[in-house]
Amino acid sequence: LQTVKKIALIVGGGTGSRMGSDVPKQFLSLAGKPVLFHTLEKFRDIADHIVLVLPDAQFHYWKRLCTDHHFDLPHILVAGGATRSQSVFNGLQSLNADGVVAIHDAVRPLVSEQLITTLFNDAITHGSAVPVIPVRESLRKKSGKAVNREDYLIVQTPQCFRIDDIMAAYIHAGNSSFSDDASVFECNGGAIHTVEGESGNFKITFREDLAAAEAMITSIK
Amino acid sequence: LQTVKKIALIVGGGTGSRMGSDVPKQFLSLAGKPVLFHTLEKFRDIADHIVLVLPDAQFHYWKRLCTDHHFDLPHILVAGGATRSQSVFNGLQSLNADGVVAIHDAVRPLVSEQLITTLFNDAITHGSAVPVIPVRESLRKKSGKAVNREDYLIVQTPQCFRIDDIMAAYIHAGNSSFSDDASVFECNGGAIHTVEGESGNFKITFREDLAAAEAMITSIK
Repeated sequence: LQTVKKIALIVGGGTGSRMGSDVPKQFLSLAGKPVLFHTLEKFRDIADHIVLVLPDAQFHYWKRLCTDHHFDLPHILVAGGATRSQSVFNGLQSLNADGVVAIHDAVRPLVSEQLITTLFNDAITHGSAVPVIPVRESLRKKSGKAVNREDYLIVQTPQCFRIDDIMAAYIHAGNSSFSDDASVFECNGGAIHTVEGESGNFKITFREDLAAAEAMITSIK
Repeated sequence: LQTVKKIALIVGGGTGSRMGSDVPKQFLSLAGKPVLFHTLEKFRDIADHIVLVLPDAQFHYWKRLCTDHHFDLPHILVAGGATRSQSVFNGLQSLNADGVVAIHDAVRPLVSEQLITTLFNDAITHGSAVPVIPVRESLRKKSGKAVNREDYLIVQTPQCFRIDDIMAAYIHAGNSSFSDDASVFECNGGAIHTVEGESGNFKITFREDLAAAEAMITSIK
């Protein structure tokens, strides 16, 4: 396993509008530092390289945050696109490397290092590794009736793939819209290997999520 | 609308095991008082009667909580069954009344009074009213592939129905397993009227949910 390069591709976007805030969610303060610092640090001891995709309008703000907080974790900054898929594709294009890539949401700072390690290793063995958790709430189809939530899984990130496979899948997908990288991979014939995710590895989308994240970090320490 | 009786049926269960706690989730302290006090109080000014279904093993604990906290909101206590469905059925059987019933999870203390009012009124008009929100995370089928989350909705509570209709549906359902009351209603031919739910109206299932709830209550005050 040691010779396979492990790349973290962290994808940020958003405008913060759902948080009732002008600051994009990845920059909000969590336990004393920006959410994104927590996220990147989770990959520090595991990934060989970290690539961060952000809207280029946020580059200046991000660099100032890093300077102001003396945040010196090495990473490559890549400009995102108009959609999440385009941002991931831009990030993948910047990788001139073999190996495996973990594509991760910037706003999931609570993923554990153990899960990241498992996902990288499983992707090397199985060609893909995607964390999933059970559906906690009842589900129904918009155009129909209730469905059995036991038949479904919630998909988290990081989603790990061999770099050339996921790159080929993104090229094949073109401009189609997908909600996650596993879907893109699958539409090019890839088989998804699932791994048990973590209930604590949630996305910071709403104001209350930030408080929940803060409580988790405080209780872990 | 004023002549139709409005009943709140609050359903608690659980053993607290997922919280890493021996105390069932509805009894955990939230902003200084048990979760269930918050939940019941949301219905104080809206419902004509409040029925609380709890496992009978929790009756003594609950009554002591009420005494110790001088909690004097009038309500009827009904013994739950082995499953949520059986608990709801027990609660429905205790209602010797016409009108509409709002069946609500004990561990959703953050529902707004505005949403409760809308649901009661819509159930009177449409025969049912169920709060739904968009799916925030990617979904896949266990036995298959990714599905488009845009096609799905997450179903919350309170779920409101005419009492005789939901009672008939529960009798029709027998011992079948359903994840929510809307499914039971639907399986007896009922049509579900959906209402926009609230992201803050989440279930307190994990430890971090309690912290999120606490932050929401604090910021609202």
